[in-house]
Amino acid sequence: MSSNQHKKSLKIHLAQLNFTVGDIDGNAHKIIDEYLKANANNCDLVIFSEMAICGYPCEDLWLKEYFIKKCQEKIIDILSITKGHKCAILLGAPFFEFERKKSVLRNSAMLLEDGEIKQIISKKSLPNYGVFDENRYFKPSSHITNFEFRGFDIVVLVCEDLWDERNLMLLREQAFDFIVSINASPFNSGKCQQRLDLATKYSQDLEKPLIYVNQVGGQDSLIFDGASFVMNKQAQVVLQMPNFVEDYAQIEVSKDLKIDVLKNFDCQNQNIFIEQSLEQFYCASVLGLRDYVKKNNFKKVLIGMSGGIDSALVATIAVDALGSEGVALYALPTKFNSTTSLVDAKACAENLNIELKTIEIEEVFQTTLAQINKSENLSQLAQENLQSRIRGNVLMAISNSTNWLLISTGNKSEMACGYATLYGDMNGAFNPIKDFYKTQIYELAKFRNQNLCKISSFNHLNLIPQNIIFKEPSAELRYNQKDSDSLPEYEILDKILFLLIEKQNSIDEVVNAGFDFGLVNRVAKLIYQSEYKRKQSVLGVKVSVLAFDKERRYPLTNKFML
Amino acid sequence: MSSNQHKKSLKIHLAQLNFTVGDIDGNAHKIIDEYLKANANNCDLVIFSEMAICGYPCEDLWLKEYFIKKCQEKIIDILSITKGHKCAILLGAPFFEFERKKSVLRNSAMLLEDGEIKQIISKKSLPNYGVFDENRYFKPSSHITNFEFRGFDIVVLVCEDLWDERNLMLLREQAFDFIVSINASPFNSGKCQQRLDLATKYSQDLEKPLIYVNQVGGQDSLIFDGASFVMNKQAQVVLQMPNFVEDYAQIEVSKDLKIDVLKNFDCQNQNIFIEQSLEQFYCASVLGLRDYVKKNNFKKVLIGMSGGIDSALVATIAVDALGSEGVALYALPTKFNSTTSLVDAKACAENLNIELKTIEIEEVFQTTLAQINKSENLSQLAQENLQSRIRGNVLMAISNSTNWLLISTGNKSEMACGYATLYGDMNGAFNPIKDFYKTQIYELAKFRNQNLCKISSFNHLNLIPQNIIFKEPSAELRYNQKDSDSLPEYEILDKILFLLIEKQNSIDEVVNAGFDFGLVNRVAKLIYQSEYKRKQSVLGVKVSVLAFDKERRYPLTNKFML
Repeated sequence: MSSNQHKKSLKIHLAQLNFTVGDIDGNAHKIIDEYLKANANNCDLVIFSEMAICGYPCEDLWLKEYFIKKCQEKIIDILSITKGHKCAILLGAPFFEFERKKSVLRNSAMLLEDGEIKQIISKKSLPNYGVFDENRYFKPSSHITNFEFRGFDIVVLVCEDLWDERNLMLLREQAFDFIVSINASPFNSGKCQQRLDLATKYSQDLEKPLIYVNQVGGQDSLIFDGASFVMNKQAQVVLQMPNFVEDYAQIEVSKDLKIDVLKNFDCQNQNIFIEQSLEQFYCASVLGLRDYVKKNNFKKVLIGMSGGIDSALVATIAVDALGSEGVALYALPTKFNSTTSLVDAKACAENLNIELKTIEIEEVFQTTLAQINKSENLSQLAQENLQSRIRGNVLMAISNSTNWLLISTGNKSEMACGYATLYGDMNGAFNPIKDFYKTQIYELAKFRNQNLCKISSFNHLNLIPQNIIFKEPSAELRYNQKDSDSLPEYEILDKILFLLIEKQNSIDEVVNAGFDFGLVNRVAKLIYQSEYKRKQSVLGVKVSVLAFDKERRYPLTNKFML
Repeated sequence: MSSNQHKKSLKIHLAQLNFTVGDIDGNAHKIIDEYLKANANNCDLVIFSEMAICGYPCEDLWLKEYFIKKCQEKIIDILSITKGHKCAILLGAPFFEFERKKSVLRNSAMLLEDGEIKQIISKKSLPNYGVFDENRYFKPSSHITNFEFRGFDIVVLVCEDLWDERNLMLLREQAFDFIVSINASPFNSGKCQQRLDLATKYSQDLEKPLIYVNQVGGQDSLIFDGASFVMNKQAQVVLQMPNFVEDYAQIEVSKDLKIDVLKNFDCQNQNIFIEQSLEQFYCASVLGLRDYVKKNNFKKVLIGMSGGIDSALVATIAVDALGSEGVALYALPTKFNSTTSLVDAKACAENLNIELKTIEIEEVFQTTLAQINKSENLSQLAQENLQSRIRGNVLMAISNSTNWLLISTGNKSEMACGYATLYGDMNGAFNPIKDFYKTQIYELAKFRNQNLCKISSFNHLNLIPQNIIFKEPSAELRYNQKDSDSLPEYEILDKILFLLIEKQNSIDEVVNAGFDFGLVNRVAKLIYQSEYKRKQSVLGVKVSVLAFDKERRYPLTNKFML
């Protein structure tokens, strides 16, 4: 039982869990439950992700001294559980350290063993780009630390420490046995491969094993995909944990740094690492919506069904996230809505095992128009927006009355171009498709029609009627309206948007990539003019390398178009 | 004319100008105009504020390489103007520097003289707290630089460099004549005095003069108040420039570092430095709204007038910002609105020299209610919100039709407690009173009734009817409703809010300050529950030390109340 005895091997438990921001008590319970499981399994060490105690990212909660104190109190509680047990804990937590008479906050990893905090290792490389603002909260450590644990010399890297390759150079000068990397690394397109590539670089260069533990779960716009893994000293992945679900695994590291993956326990999800990127996107969206709804204590969501593909896909995602009983669907037609729209919406709802309710808004629209027209003459555009806003109002009234969350259904192409009505169809508490371009919406609909969602228990295919997928997109705010009246064809539009937004290209660069100058200019202007709408838009699931929300921070008052 | 001659004195022009973010051409024009004025006046040097060329803060525009290149091209244009002239320019600009084979971006000050960039000094202390995110964009300089200019040795500090007192320690080791501090320092309560206190510390400690140049103008939530000044080596303020207006001044620094303020030129605003904090708040709000509207190329704003104090004050601020012709006022009554409300609103509009238009919404409300009630039974709260959202819809329809900007009128007490309807009275493009507590709203109304606004040409007093100021506040969404039905008295509420928000106190700390535990807990819960509303709320003028918008970054999914 002594922690000092030099062992021949270390048995390590990797805990890939879904923590909740600010739920210090709940997170501590999860940590303790998992710890007791690992300890009962005769493990030496259980590894939890970055900021396991408080969730990630806590944003300005980290600025509150009493929040940090609450975290530290809970760590003491966890510590007391380890007393007299064999197994130690490595977990991420915020930590106040005294430096030149001042208390500074660190993003740390703590080793808890037999009732004592044996080691505190702090993050050296703080990310302050993209969605990250860690310089706002933490002071960096000046060095990479290794420590002795039961005869093994372990280096701990906290998330970004792995991404900063200056740390690889430092590690070349350090003697140690293996690396443990604890993370709160959010998902986006291609991220899994990037992490593996980085780990390979370290492992190959240093000829050491690397244990990578990530958290899982949705936190506002960010989806943590888990996908923890272990690499041996030949840079081979010997363990790949699943993405988008909680899971755990156990390995044994021998004195000569060979790694055995232990199979002798029940681990039901172990085999569902999702490889394909479209499937990853779909699962990210499901997990993001599910966790937003559940972690905020809601039971049911509400979606306005237009008969178009966006709301049909959102309804499908919602059912995969919450089950049919967790989703209410409403159609709110005016005279401009084609009868096929209602038929399509109804067919989709039936496939999802939900009754589509209908509330006519034509009369409300006419009454409002008549009342305003007594003193003003509304433009065509104002009349179109008015319909969308009446729908938004009705849906919010139902939401307020039922306590169901209204879900917003604007895709990235619309959000980029401002082709959505502020206080109308942009209404809602969360948007699971905000970061999907319209062309991706079609791909995802086709994908889900042909495949089940692995993290859902709704086991039906062909949920979205073919007519919804193949008809021409329209907002139906006037007779015979088509999206293509105001926007370029989505196939071209989305490519231009991708270059302007994700690639941050200038107009000239996009033109050089083969697009028409007038068209690119027009698209750039649409993006520029709709910044104010995005500023008031609802949070949505991030899947791309550059999503809106925290990752695109633009001034509204700005004379520089692109 | 040679820049090398050692002179007996330096004649310096301080330019306190209103730059616009992204308006590189426009800003360059301003710089050149001011330069030619200074040069014609036989000056040696004209000093512009931080990031004069591009405005501040440019946020993610700074991440675009072609944005920085455009700035650098314009600097070359300005440079060519200085060729053959006596006067040199010191101005703030972003600057790409090569460091270890990589191009890094600096927040710099450049000395342009006789067609050449003679010096580039970069910011050492990057602010990354509150509203600032400079670590996202810039790399810091490693040192504080001084340089020789016409026989004087000058230290240049870029904004935060002055606030980081480690730099004062460094300057103790350096020989130099005086300090030039260029700034983009936003206004908030008490900020002017803080700047003077800091400058006094440097000046007293180092026994050197300090020239402080700040920009002026509104940029989204931030108001730059100007208030540039010059301190002599005895730490006495020898020149205090006005706040909230563009201005310039000239001084002469002699070889023995005596400072003469030159009076021999026309400077109309020179005498209106506003001392009183309530008056500063009012002016900040006027300037913020005026610049938001004008810099975004709008001509007119639209305000829903309830007959309550918030909309009355906003209408008054709007008239001070844009004149009566720049403001349209609408009343949108239901049966729940008292007749006195309409009378009060009309009286206020008359005082502001504006016709109050009325659009009845009772029929729209009843029609909507009837239509929804066919399938749902709306709760009382949902019905109340519905009225607010119908108003929001009607105002947005007029806004879309006229291209007038809708102005939002929620105060900080409401925004804090969520006592405002999302997609209803929260609608709007900008909110000039978002950072004023309700008790401050009353103070500002009384203040403006008795005083003119110095940066306005609307020269009338007593604009807000006494009845609006003295009646009990009500949202009038049901009969005999009072704010005090749902909220504590504002006198107490605002004190609790101040401690919880600005002072970031815990509930225990507020209780220890003498407030009832149950009440504090209830207020904390209101703040906690309404985070999602603030996330979608419109930008408003920051006046306090902790405003919403960029300064309060809270997760929505969060289990930690306070």
